[in-house]
Amino acid sequence: MTNLLHLDASSAPDGESVSRRLTARFAAAWRDVHGDAGYRYRDLAADPLPFVGAGFTTLARRAQRAGVSPDQVAALAEGAGEAREWERSRPLIDELSGAGTLLIGCPMYNLSVPAALKAWIDRVTFPGAFIVPATGESVLADLRVIVVAVRGGAYGPGTPREGFDFQEPYLRAWFTGTLGLRPDQLTFVTAELTRSADIPALAPLKDLAAGSLAAAEDAVDRLATDHPDVHTRMSAPAAVPTAP
Amino acid sequence: MTNLLHLDASSAPDGESVSRRLTARFAAAWRDVHGDAGYRYRDLAADPLPFVGAGFTTLARRAQRAGVSPDQVAALAEGAGEAREWERSRPLIDELSGAGTLLIGCPMYNLSVPAALKAWIDRVTFPGAFIVPATGESVLADLRVIVVAVRGGAYGPGTPREGFDFQEPYLRAWFTGTLGLRPDQLTFVTAELTRSADIPALAPLKDLAAGSLAAAEDAVDRLATDHPDVHTRMSAPAAVPTAP
Repeated sequence: MTNLLHLDASSAPDGESVSRRLTARFAAAWRDVHGDAGYRYRDLAADPLPFVGAGFTTLARRAQRAGVSPDQVAALAEGAGEAREWERSRPLIDELSGAGTLLIGCPMYNLSVPAALKAWIDRVTFPGAFIVPATGESVLADLRVIVVAVRGGAYGPGTPREGFDFQEPYLRAWFTGTLGLRPDQLTFVTAELTRSADIPALAPLKDLAAGSLAAAEDAVDRLATDHPDVHTRMSAPAAVPTAP
Repeated sequence: MTNLLHLDASSAPDGESVSRRLTARFAAAWRDVHGDAGYRYRDLAADPLPFVGAGFTTLARRAQRAGVSPDQVAALAEGAGEAREWERSRPLIDELSGAGTLLIGCPMYNLSVPAALKAWIDRVTFPGAFIVPATGESVLADLRVIVVAVRGGAYGPGTPREGFDFQEPYLRAWFTGTLGLRPDQLTFVTAELTRSADIPALAPLKDLAAGSLAAAEDAVDRLATDHPDVHTRMSAPAAVPTAP
């Protein structure tokens, strides 16, 4: 299974969005290597997901108490509202479970992830979907996650905005704390100071911004081609020397 | 001006949502004192806001470069897309600017705020709307913010989930770092462990949950009635002894 699930969340169109440009670059390089069959794209801004509704919460709580897997959830749904909520979430859950690589184009909006991405997070997170109730193990143990995190300013250690980044730390917490991924399954490619082109106060930082973007492009190229995803590595014959 | 802007973001219906019950309690007590004229309600789950679109970003960047106030933004809009984005945001901006108290019912969804609340945050945050470009001062200097923050588990110091709270720290960062509020303008009323009623593993914590809820109810009653909002205090005759 060599599947790439590619999500974009920027509200800006392709030509103006740095995150879209970087994820498109990754996806193109990945498809050159792996072909198109396993490629799946979701534009969370152009095709927004509806927020979870009342039936989602009641169904999720019932599923959690029952300790069921996704295949058993539909039978638990009571009424049309709950059934509809599950019909909206199940395809997203299956897409994520079936992915070898998850690629997210995530601009920082108001210090955190865009609402459009949070709507996906709220809808895909369902009890028993990714952590098997009986064993506590994650079904995403072989998933590789690449987050292209773009920010208009700079939020690293020593900057005036240190401690105001609720984008990368939040996504790390959700992937590890809620979905059960190991930290080594997550890679963040960060392009900072992208607003230096149009905010006068940031103009002196244009060189830093250019360097940040170039490094992000290099990282994307390397990740898309040099590193086959975990599923590929697991299914390909390993080049280990045989015992003498 | 004694206005209360009341936002709810829980996807659960009134009867099942702790955050809705607590904000309704606040609003009822507040209206007993102040009347109904200044009360404004928005249900962000029942009447979801559209995510910001491409025109929002381009218009916001143009407005930021021009350093304009909200009254001057419409004249900057280019094309129907930008004009529509502004028409969708302006009423929310005016509501917030005109509020003496902002009350937010905010359950924790996946460690952070619900996507429905983030959609409001993304749409109301606009350059020049709350921080006057010429002076750097916040137009919300007299706003009082009450966030009713409800969580199924516990996230305080010493708990296993310490460091996984991206609800309160995030909202504090946005209100202070982006909107320019002082920390003392923010009050968080927290009800924790609300899922102890239906998650068997949390059942032993039911007493703690009941105590947390009772404390939240007390806080809501006190905040709604004992503490008139800042605008009231500023416009009412002060009960200061006259100089001898």
